[in-house]
Amino acid sequence: MIIVMKHTATSDEINTAVKQIENAGLSAHISQGAVVTIIGVVGDKSLLSSDCLCSLNGVDKIVPVTETYKLANLKFHPEPTKVKLGNCEVGGKQLIIMAGPCAIESRDQLLESADAVKMGGATVLRGGAYKPRTSPYSFQGLEEEGLKYMQEAREKTGLSIVCEVTSISAVETASKYVDILQIGARNMQNFELLKAAGKTNIPVLLKRGLSATIDEWLNAAEYIMSEGNQNVILCERGIRTFETATRNTLDISAIPVIKSKSHLPIIVDPSHACGKRPYIPSLAKAAIAAGADGLMIEVHPNPKIALSDGPQSLDPQDFKVLMDELRPIAEAMGRTI
Amino acid sequence: MIIVMKHTATSDEINTAVKQIENAGLSAHISQGAVVTIIGVVGDKSLLSSDCLCSLNGVDKIVPVTETYKLANLKFHPEPTKVKLGNCEVGGKQLIIMAGPCAIESRDQLLESADAVKMGGATVLRGGAYKPRTSPYSFQGLEEEGLKYMQEAREKTGLSIVCEVTSISAVETASKYVDILQIGARNMQNFELLKAAGKTNIPVLLKRGLSATIDEWLNAAEYIMSEGNQNVILCERGIRTFETATRNTLDISAIPVIKSKSHLPIIVDPSHACGKRPYIPSLAKAAIAAGADGLMIEVHPNPKIALSDGPQSLDPQDFKVLMDELRPIAEAMGRTI
Amino acid sequence: MIIVMKHTATSDEINTAVKQIENAGLSAHISQGAVVTIIGVVGDKSLLSSDCLCSLNGVDKIVPVTETYKLANLKFHPEPTKVKLGNCEVGGKQLIIMAGPCAIESRDQLLESADAVKMGGATVLRGGAYKPRTSPYSFQGLEEEGLKYMQEAREKTGLSIVCEVTSISAVETASKYVDILQIGARNMQNFELLKAAGKTNIPVLLKRGLSATIDEWLNAAEYIMSEGNQNVILCERGIRTFETATRNTLDISAIPVIKSKSHLPIIVDPSHACGKRPYIPSLAKAAIAAGADGLMIEVHPNPKIALSDGPQSLDPQDFKVLMDELRPIAEAMGRTI
Amino acid sequence: MIIVMKHTATSDEINTAVKQIENAGLSAHISQGAVVTIIGVVGDKSLLSSDCLCSLNGVDKIVPVTETYKLANLKFHPEPTKVKLGNCEVGGKQLIIMAGPCAIESRDQLLESADAVKMGGATVLRGGAYKPRTSPYSFQGLEEEGLKYMQEAREKTGLSIVCEVTSISAVETASKYVDILQIGARNMQNFELLKAAGKTNIPVLLKRGLSATIDEWLNAAEYIMSEGNQNVILCERGIRTFETATRNTLDISAIPVIKSKSHLPIIVDPSHACGKRPYIPSLAKAAIAAGADGLMIEVHPNPKIALSDGPQSLDPQDFKVLMDELRPIAEAMGRTI
Repeated sequence: MIIVMKHTATSDEINTAVKQIENAGLSAHISQGAVVTIIGVVGDKSLLSSDCLCSLNGVDKIVPVTETYKLANLKFHPEPTKVKLGNCEVGGKQLIIMAGPCAIESRDQLLESADAVKMGGATVLRGGAYKPRTSPYSFQGLEEEGLKYMQEAREKTGLSIVCEVTSISAVETASKYVDILQIGARNMQNFELLKAAGKTNIPVLLKRGLSATIDEWLNAAEYIMSEGNQNVILCERGIRTFETATRNTLDISAIPVIKSKSHLPIIVDPSHACGKRPYIPSLAKAAIAAGADGLMIEVHPNPKIALSDGPQSLDPQDFKVLMDELRPIAEAMGRTI
Repeated sequence: MIIVMKHTATSDEINTAVKQIENAGLSAHISQGAVVTIIGVVGDKSLLSSDCLCSLNGVDKIVPVTETYKLANLKFHPEPTKVKLGNCEVGGKQLIIMAGPCAIESRDQLLESADAVKMGGATVLRGGAYKPRTSPYSFQGLEEEGLKYMQEAREKTGLSIVCEVTSISAVETASKYVDILQIGARNMQNFELLKAAGKTNIPVLLKRGLSATIDEWLNAAEYIMSEGNQNVILCERGIRTFETATRNTLDISAIPVIKSKSHLPIIVDPSHACGKRPYIPSLAKAAIAAGADGLMIEVHPNPKIALSDGPQSLDPQDFKVLMDELRPIAEAMGRTI
Repeated sequence: MIIVMKHTATSDEINTAVKQIENAGLSAHISQGAVVTIIGVVGDKSLLSSDCLCSLNGVDKIVPVTETYKLANLKFHPEPTKVKLGNCEVGGKQLIIMAGPCAIESRDQLLESADAVKMGGATVLRGGAYKPRTSPYSFQGLEEEGLKYMQEAREKTGLSIVCEVTSISAVETASKYVDILQIGARNMQNFELLKAAGKTNIPVLLKRGLSATIDEWLNAAEYIMSEGNQNVILCERGIRTFETATRNTLDISAIPVIKSKSHLPIIVDPSHACGKRPYIPSLAKAAIAAGADGLMIEVHPNPKIALSDGPQSLDPQDFKVLMDELRPIAEAMGRTI
Repeated sequence: MIIVMKHTATSDEINTAVKQIENAGLSAHISQGAVVTIIGVVGDKSLLSSDCLCSLNGVDKIVPVTETYKLANLKFHPEPTKVKLGNCEVGGKQLIIMAGPCAIESRDQLLESADAVKMGGATVLRGGAYKPRTSPYSFQGLEEEGLKYMQEAREKTGLSIVCEVTSISAVETASKYVDILQIGARNMQNFELLKAAGKTNIPVLLKRGLSATIDEWLNAAEYIMSEGNQNVILCERGIRTFETATRNTLDISAIPVIKSKSHLPIIVDPSHACGKRPYIPSLAKAAIAAGADGLMIEVHPNPKIALSDGPQSLDPQDFKVLMDELRPIAEAMGRTI
């Protein structure tokens, strides 16, 4: 941690800051510049609130030097994490494709979707049983009934299954059924939910919040991991910007940034990122070329009558075509699908 | 709802869209343009998923015309709502000033804060018992113990009290103590939490999400109101932008926009908006001049040793000075403090 | 300037960085931390490219400590600048109100506007002769003919006049007519234009770019000032964010931030900030309460037939009402209009 | 164009809007909804200012249906444009790689760079002779001297050359030397500069503005094309968002969006997009997989001593490695390098 003093700071103010640092059991290194003085703080900064220092007279700003996340940090865990899922793993050579409908609408719709994504080459079936919707008057999901259909689809197809959970009680219920618990973008900083997922031993797919920085995202992963569950898969799904041509802006750079800061695997959801079917294939290809460990794609047997997110769902035929186009790119990247 | 067809749409595609609209019991009005055809949809659009229409071949885009929120909508409730709080109300002539520490740290710190904000002229005491923090290693709050201190402070000072709740179980506990339940920015789209707050009859202070549009914010209010609780107070606290000189960017325009779309009262939190003590007075004054119904301001008896958000807390003396500066502006706006 | 080394940096890499600093005639102060090493650089950093340092092996990041702008910096010029304009000045006790049509459409429209804004209490007449428009097929302005109408309006009313310039040749032409040259948001980093304006001795109104940070804005002012022209007036006019309820998001915090970093006066343009007539009065009041030195407001004798920006123009009657509402707020702030 | 009336609009207000539309020689189609009335406007909307309509009483909003750009629009020019460059073309099967230093620093540095990028497989040499820099005290470029070195490099290597122009006089000078004129991000809406480039017959590389929407970008292209020059190459280089882990956020979706709206070729500049060397290869690969027609990459013979943008420059060896990694991805996309 570095403290930058104001150019008007008095030596009394500098001494006070140094004393507060030393009182916390840390060391202070002073660099007297031509215009300003800076103080380097050495030691375990969790002993000291940067907020307090910042409130001292004469302090201009505090520059953090080390990250607050530890378990998710590549520095302290240099080997990439591979998250095991039934008979496959996320973060290994094989790219993991999760596909299926946004919302589970009925047993038939889900089983049909499961067959279609299995046929196309997916390894995980996605499907929403608890739907966070902007308006309270939109379809909110089949809840436990939907989870049962998911379980049935797993039995029939051998696919692993992933479901979003939106409350602590949903974590409890879903834990009985699913292979991966998904925490959605809107709940990325619902810390109580993160802790509840951290107390299970089920892999967690953690979507990035709509306006979360990469640092906040890794800190959210840290909430899960600090409860004991190390099986976190990150999922980039677009951030909010001024551009309205797409629903969100896929932050493709998040892939190399995460790979340089964390050992956790990262996949990309091109469907939610752009919100428009024709753009999905380009983004899916880009994600793999950028080094993502997999994809999450919305596939609906009949997007035209989907109860939720129809415009961003591929139909089974489109999905199959896309999978065929992805294979040579995966190969060029030294990966398999 | 308006459907804009692609310029390449065939008459078959147009007919299919019209049929789907009519099958849902609605009417379709076709306008054949020089380049494109548009279809106006008349009737209760909740009968029809815009997502489905958007998935039809030949459809370019759907333009919503009416808002999805009803109970929060000025159109259907033209009188401003006044939320009653003990012996005052939010949304009336009197501006409501909520003040107090970010986090409740101890009984002494809270009681001292309560006295200070009472003396300065505040009518509501704020204090966090459940703290949502970016890192799991930061101070997380005193929970129910903190609520008890809040209750004691209310008894001593007569101030109403407001506390953030971060989970359904916190709603249950806090309901026994507080006058206002606060839903924080990170939980604005934690729909399960919104519903739980909506099932109480306690006023809810709903902060705007860091990247929530005003429409999403009003839809979040709708979640609370649709469960039966009409006592919602909105709180603008800054949105996330590219500018880093301030912690967030206070969206001052949100005040007139909300006033033109909703009957709910709106207050402003300048402390979280800017994150830096020297900027708070300017923003507080601006908020009142823009028409806000009140303010929420962080005040700490000794900001230099605050466990949380010290740099954005005023000390009691600063707070008193600010209150004195606010009075003539309130008066110029025909309000009182 | 502070150099933060990577946690993996070798002592060789640290020595190389130190050597490069010392070769440039500067001093390096090393602080060896528990995890990382930081190097404080003392001396005139313009002798050293931070980009080069950043490219060295083992360097994690460079943290600038001092600003790159000097002439615009409050640190080196602690007294507020007052920009003289005919018989008034911007930055003094009197608030300066600039008002008039977005585009000059005809002699009659301009003279009528001038009378109206004079009557309402404005001291400067605005009017666009060179219009930067998103589409090449939109009305582009009357150019020198418009400047002549402006001059005539000044003679008739005694108002000072301000016009946007969009090219070096427009600077040359406009310099013969106007009291203030305006650099628009789209040209805030058109450095050739800034330099040209800096070579005149006419006050320059520098609008903030749509996505310019406050630092970039002050550096743009520095371009003008470094050519010799110290008469710069800043104008906040909204930044681009994800919110679509308003055309842009007025960054009201820019006022106290600028006041803490620079001695230059700052005014606010609520018309371009929100783009919608009903929201203008709230923003205008907020700007004054936040400490702005004036306003720039679009007024059109008949907004319904304006060739440009009708929806954000007040009519003369609305303007007069607004001015009357602003006076008590100005007074509460210790200012006059 | 669709006019959405307020729910409170009177029939008089509706009639006035209709009359204004018909007076402009257009037709109005009224759809009376349950809550609001909408009016479809049919005909050449350039006859009518949407701003005026928006100012009418009772009008809620105007929804544009057709784009304002025509020459750049895929609707009116369905075949992809191929821009000829010496012995290659941008927009064909071959991907065009433009590479070289950010700034031309000396004859030796440029010639060395040219050899390196030629060896790596680039077809166009980039190099800045006119540098737009945030601070007036940063290195501003060698201007015409730099252009001469570029010309010499072209003669020695056979590479085509591209240079940024920052003023009308730079357009005039550079036109005598270069194969492509580059308009930088900061000048994307410097309309006078766009027009000047449009009056030459030299291909123009138009970078996207830091906060420009795709629509504004295509309108900027339209400025060039409407002056007669149809040879426009678009270049996505990152947009400004809240994320600070990268200098900007590469909007990878811009590639499929542009391909769906325009016939112009689009390339990607990963160097400026991320600003950090280690992330460039991922973004370069992603761009090609997303369908870009080429790349612009910063290569410097010795990034550690670059006068500008060292941290985002590859050295010749890194560049060669990247080119080798790009080839199989290009192949997977049916393209060549």
